[in-house]
Amino acid sequence: MHIEILNTGTELLLGTTQNTHGAWIGQELIKLGLRVQRQTTVPDGEPVREAIKESIERADVLIVTGGLGPTSDDLTREATAEAMGIDLIEDEHALRVVVEFFKNLDKYMADSNLKQAMIPCGAEVLPNPNGTAPGVYLPPRLGKGSPCAVFLLPGPPRELYPMYHAEVPHRLKALAELSDDHEMVEMKFTGIGESDFHEALDSPLNAIAGLEVGYCARPSEVDLRLIGPHAAVESARTLVTNTYPDKLISDDGSLLEKVVVDLLAAKKWNLATVESCTGGAVASRITDVAGASEVFTHGFVTYANEAKRDVIGVSEDLLNTHGAVSEQVARAMAQGALETSGADIAVSVTGIAGPGGGSEEKPVGSVWLGIAVKGETPYALKSFYPKDRAAFKLMASQRALDLVRRELRSE
Amino acid sequence: MHIEILNTGTELLLGTTQNTHGAWIGQELIKLGLRVQRQTTVPDGEPVREAIKESIERADVLIVTGGLGPTSDDLTREATAEAMGIDLIEDEHALRVVVEFFKNLDKYMADSNLKQAMIPCGAEVLPNPNGTAPGVYLPPRLGKGSPCAVFLLPGPPRELYPMYHAEVPHRLKALAELSDDHEMVEMKFTGIGESDFHEALDSPLNAIAGLEVGYCARPSEVDLRLIGPHAAVESARTLVTNTYPDKLISDDGSLLEKVVVDLLAAKKWNLATVESCTGGAVASRITDVAGASEVFTHGFVTYANEAKRDVIGVSEDLLNTHGAVSEQVARAMAQGALETSGADIAVSVTGIAGPGGGSEEKPVGSVWLGIAVKGETPYALKSFYPKDRAAFKLMASQRALDLVRRELRSE
Repeated sequence: MHIEILNTGTELLLGTTQNTHGAWIGQELIKLGLRVQRQTTVPDGEPVREAIKESIERADVLIVTGGLGPTSDDLTREATAEAMGIDLIEDEHALRVVVEFFKNLDKYMADSNLKQAMIPCGAEVLPNPNGTAPGVYLPPRLGKGSPCAVFLLPGPPRELYPMYHAEVPHRLKALAELSDDHEMVEMKFTGIGESDFHEALDSPLNAIAGLEVGYCARPSEVDLRLIGPHAAVESARTLVTNTYPDKLISDDGSLLEKVVVDLLAAKKWNLATVESCTGGAVASRITDVAGASEVFTHGFVTYANEAKRDVIGVSEDLLNTHGAVSEQVARAMAQGALETSGADIAVSVTGIAGPGGGSEEKPVGSVWLGIAVKGETPYALKSFYPKDRAAFKLMASQRALDLVRRELRSE
Repeated sequence: MHIEILNTGTELLLGTTQNTHGAWIGQELIKLGLRVQRQTTVPDGEPVREAIKESIERADVLIVTGGLGPTSDDLTREATAEAMGIDLIEDEHALRVVVEFFKNLDKYMADSNLKQAMIPCGAEVLPNPNGTAPGVYLPPRLGKGSPCAVFLLPGPPRELYPMYHAEVPHRLKALAELSDDHEMVEMKFTGIGESDFHEALDSPLNAIAGLEVGYCARPSEVDLRLIGPHAAVESARTLVTNTYPDKLISDDGSLLEKVVVDLLAAKKWNLATVESCTGGAVASRITDVAGASEVFTHGFVTYANEAKRDVIGVSEDLLNTHGAVSEQVARAMAQGALETSGADIAVSVTGIAGPGGGSEEKPVGSVWLGIAVKGETPYALKSFYPKDRAAFKLMASQRALDLVRRELRSE
C-alpha cells in the first residue's frame, strides 16, 4: 500500500518550526507494519492544490496535515475536493461542532470560522475535541473520485495526535487488510563502519525471505533496522549478533549510555569519569539516563594539568615526561579518579580536540582513553578522530562509554 | 527563484530519525532572503529517481541531501545523471579524495567506496573534509540538460553543514542575482518568553519599512532574526537592544557558551564549574568552545553528596541540615569549587532532574544555582524547570551560563 504524507505550512519551510509530523506519523505507521513512501512539505495556499493532485495520482492513501483553519490560506479542504472532483458542502454536523466549540469557550466566533464546516460531499467528518477545525476522511472512490483514500488532519500536534489515534489506525488496517505478523527490531553497533557491515552482511541478510534491512550511520555508531515477519527478523537478529557479538550495543534501541548504566546497576558498581578533551560530555551522557545517580557519584573535568595533578593526583613527573595526552597519563587519570572517588570502575579521556593544540607527534584528533578497575592494573588505548570539535567530543565520549561497556561485560 | 529540497533516506520516513535538514536549509536560505517552495522526503533507492525528475521540472534550484554513500541503495548520483540526461564518469579528483580519506585513517577501503567517485560528466565536485562522499554541483543547462541547478549534498549533518556553508550560498547568490544590500542579523536572548517579545516589539518592528522579522523559541532562549536592507536591520537592532539590554546574549549568532568564554578571556579570568543535576552539561558546553582551555581549568561533577563533601569541601552539616538542593549548599558548592580550583569565578548547579527524587517541598524541576567570585560573598538563586530530563538539563545549564555572563558583565 503506497502511503504519502503531505504537510502544509509556510513555517515548516522557513525552518522556524521543525516538521515533526512526518517522523511522528512514520513511527505510528511502522507499528501497523506500514511505510510512508513519500513525505512532502508545501507552504500554505496555492501550492497545496498541485501537491494534492500529484499525490492522489500516485498513492493509495494520502494523509494531509494542516490548512484546515479559517484563514484565506487554509486551502486543504477546497484543494482536496477540487482534486477529487467533489463539491464542498456545508456539513450540518461540522457546523454544529464549530459553533459549540466557541460557545463552550464563551468566545466570539469570527464568520471565517464557518469555512471550517465546508466538507467534501460524502466525506466523513472526524471530530476534533481539541480545536475548532474538524478532520475529514474521504474513502477510496468517493463519488466518481480517485481510488486514493485521503485523511485531512489538523496541524497543531495537540489536535493532530489525538485525532490520529482515534480515527486513522483502524481505517488504515481495513484498507491494507493487514496481517499481524510484522515487527521491527533496531540494533545499535559501535566500533565498525557502515561499509564493513555491508560487505559482511548484505548477502546473508538478503537471503532471508521477507526481511527488509535498513542502515543508519551516526558518528561512531551504526544502527541496523530489521523489519518483516517474526521468523525472518529473529533469524536475522541471530545472524547479526553472532557476526559482531562484541560490537553490539543493544537490540532494543537503547542508547550506549543507557546500556552502561544498566550494566553498572546489575553489578552494583559505581562509575567515575575523568575527562580532559571531552570536557564533561561523558559525565553528561551518563547523567542523561534516569537513575544514573544509583551508579554514578563523581565526575572530574580536569581540563588543565594542574587539575589533573591537584584533584586526582596525577604526578607532575608523568605530566612533564610524557605530556597530558599519553598512555601513562590516561592510566594515571583513571586510577586517580578511581581512588579519589572510591568507585569500582573509572574511565579517563585525554586528547586534543582542536582546532589548536596539535603537534606533528600528537596531531589534532589524538586521544588516549584509560580504564581502571578496583584491584586491577589500569590500562589505556589510543584512538584518533580527526574531526571538528563537536564530532571529536562525541566520538571520544562514545569510545569511552564503549570501553566501560566492554569492561563490564568481560568482568 | 523556485527552490526545492529533496531529502533521501528510508530512516527519515520510518520516523526513527527526525528530518532536521529541511528546516536547517530553510533557515540558511532565509539568511539570503530566499525561500523553499517545496520539500520532499523519499526512501533510499528507486523512489529517488522519480522525485528528482519531478523536482527539476518545477524548480530553478534543487538541493538534494543523502544517498551519496557506497551502498546499493545510494542512488542520488545515478538518478540525477539519468534525470538530467548526463553520463556518470569516474572523476579523478573525487577518486583521489576517497582513496586519501581511507589512507589517512589507515583504514581498509571497501571496493564499494569507489562508487563515490562516479560523478555526472561536467559537474563540479564539492570536497567533503568530514567524510568519504564528495558532494556534486550541476550548474543550470549542464550539457543539453535541465535549466535547474542541482546540489547533491551528503546526509550526515557533520558532513552536510560544513559543505553547505563552503559551497552553496555563493552559488545561490549568483543564481538569484541577489542585491548586496540585504543582510540578516540573528540576536539571541535568554530570560524572556516569545510572547512577551511579540507584545513589546511587534508594532514597532512592523513599522520599519523593508524589515522581515522571524522568531525562533528554544528552551530558555529566543532567537530573533532581522532581515532586510542594512538601514532597516540596524534600526531594528538598536530598538531591540535598547528594549532588552540585559537579556541580550549576542547579536552575531554566538551561542551563550561562546559569549561566556569570550568575556572570561577578556578579563583573563578562570571559570570553575560544579554540577550535580546537570551532570557535566555546563562544563561540556563551555568546552564546546574552541579556546576554552584558556579560561577553564577545573570542572566537578559532584553527583553524590559524598562527592560534594570530599572533593570540594561542602560540610556534612550543611548537607544534612538543608539537603543537597538548597541555597546554602549551592553557595557552598560554588565557594568550594572556587577554592579547590583557584579559579576567579565558579558556578554551581544542584537540583532535581527527575523523573524520581522529587518531594512536595522540592518537586522535580527545582534547582539552585550558586555564584562565587574571588574575594566576594557567594550567592545563590532558585529556578524551576518542570520538564523532561533532557530539557531540564538544557535549561538549568543555560541559566548557569547566563548567571556567569551577567556576573562578568557587572564586574
